Amino acid sequence: MFEHKKMSGVLAPVVTPFKHDLTPDGLALAKQCHWLLSQNCGLAVFGTNSEANSLSVEEKIQLLDVLIDGGVDASRMMPGTGACAIPDAVCLTAHAVSLGCGGVLMLPPFYYKGLSDEGLFRSYSEVIQRVGDVRLRIYLYHIPPVSQVPITLNLIERLLKEYPDTVVGIKDSGGDWENTKSMIECFPDFAVFAGNETALLKTMEAGGAGCISATANINAAEIYDLYVNWRAPEAQDRQQALNGLRGLMEKYPMIPALKQVVAHFTGDEAWVRVRPPLIELSEQQREDLLAALAARNFSMPGLGQGGV
Amino acid sequence: MFEHKKMSGVLAPVVTPFKHDLTPDGLALAKQCHWLLSQNCGLAVFGTNSEANSLSVEEKIQLLDVLIDGGVDASRMMPGTGACAIPDAVCLTAHAVSLGCGGVLMLPPFYYKGLSDEGLFRSYSEVIQRVGDVRLRIYLYHIPPVSQVPITLNLIERLLKEYPDTVVGIKDSGGDWENTKSMIECFPDFAVFAGNETALLKTMEAGGAGCISATANINAAEIYDLYVNWRAPEAQDRQQALNGLRGLMEKYPMIPALKQVVAHFTGDEAWVRVRPPLIELSEQQREDLLAALAARNFSMPGLGQGGV
Repeated sequence: MFEHKKMSGVLAPVVTPFKHDLTPDGLALAKQCHWLLSQNCGLAVFGTNSEANSLSVEEKIQLLDVLIDGGVDASRMMPGTGACAIPDAVCLTAHAVSLGCGGVLMLPPFYYKGLSDEGLFRSYSEVIQRVGDVRLRIYLYHIPPVSQVPITLNLIERLLKEYPDTVVGIKDSGGDWENTKSMIECFPDFAVFAGNETALLKTMEAGGAGCISATANINAAEIYDLYVNWRAPEAQDRQQALNGLRGLMEKYPMIPALKQVVAHFTGDEAWVRVRPPLIELSEQQREDLLAALAARNFSMPGLGQGGV
Repeated sequence: MFEHKKMSGVLAPVVTPFKHDLTPDGLALAKQCHWLLSQNCGLAVFGTNSEANSLSVEEKIQLLDVLIDGGVDASRMMPGTGACAIPDAVCLTAHAVSLGCGGVLMLPPFYYKGLSDEGLFRSYSEVIQRVGDVRLRIYLYHIPPVSQVPITLNLIERLLKEYPDTVVGIKDSGGDWENTKSMIECFPDFAVFAGNETALLKTMEAGGAGCISATANINAAEIYDLYVNWRAPEAQDRQQALNGLRGLMEKYPMIPALKQVVAHFTGDEAWVRVRPPLIELSEQQREDLLAALAARNFSMPGLGQGGV
């Protein structure tokens, strides 16, 4: 029987760097991934905040290959592989599994709305059966504010019943703590990740697996600290500190704001680039954000120092 | 200067047939397209009701090739080519243009929400510039109930100013007549298609181009009749009759219902198949739908008779 440890801890939907012609910069991404690993941060590459859905399947496959060639630990990777079309999800998922990725984070198909649990069950089922690999570990991706296609408790129950060794966890980005709590309580061996660090302490107290959070791109070490020390007396204070930075970032469009911060602390302005339909921060937003971070003495030690 | 007549009339987002293994059946699709053309119906293949977003770019390219090889008139085709990722939209759009398609129907990128007009402008702009073909004719696709990404009057204005020969029309599936009317009034040479035939008479009276409607898959000749004879005294009665059938179909999930009707009148049960995340009609729905159609003496003359 193939054994595969469930993933846990803190993961970042790693922001994706683009070159002048808007093609992804795999080497810069690999460097960033190594830095994140040095911060005890797992790699949910191709997440929402990675602009994953602005990348083609081919681009994502090439990026995965560059990361593996660049020595990034596949077991710490949970690439996003969900897609609207089953062949796309199958293609990318199979490639991720073949590279030894620790898991995949799988969006439901997100174009059609008002879907039934039966339809979503069939969709995940087709992907699982077509990939047909005992090593596949799926973390479902519940993010109704963006996908508009929720993953219900009923759907999880059906998937767990049919594919208990394959469907092993979920990222809950629904923003409703009661739902996260229900997922943890209803499915004891299911790895439930909070959608961001503001619910990390509660998630750990309830028996969850950690968090997968946009802001882990810039604040992973601090978030990991709470993940490890959630039983410590000062845990609530740490949670408050994390919430402070998160709240600051949420005043801006998240993806361009994250990239602005990475650009600032790497000294590499190329990081500012986003693919349409997103746009970079305005000059005013940029100044305000960097000033607010400076006022908090925020820094990203070791970022962009090379050789990582 | 390249001249290209604007498309008009009645078009169907042609339903896509699948084989046992859920791969698209190009030959069956070609046959259906020929039948629709015989009903004076243009071909908005790869629309929402074609399950286009459940198909990979490669599958859509192959289907286009099969249609052209099968003698389908490219000038009557307006394939849907919008995608979340710019490279996908560019690839499929360039292929459609190279085949001589009369136009393309282009969704905005639809994963990220709360987008700015600037971001959407850049997105369309990148696709237009990368395709870089003077023959390209884009019909924008406004369908906020599904895409959740509206195309505003402001965005249209910017695109028309920058690409007056390329951005030539829109399908308005927003369900808000005032918006359709505004589009027609604000942009005189812009080809505005109603999102379905219930607004066809009003659209023609206001100066619109026609309609692109799911139900044209099964009722094209009647819809075309109103399109041609909208100035006739009985136009309002024709509109009411069209609304009756549309209303009947809207009691069911549209895509599986359309496919059920096509299956019934072709005698080919393969048409019933849908790709997940959609599901076919229940037995009860199927019976109710077919009984309701029979009560109206509904038929699809010549469908599936071969040789068309």
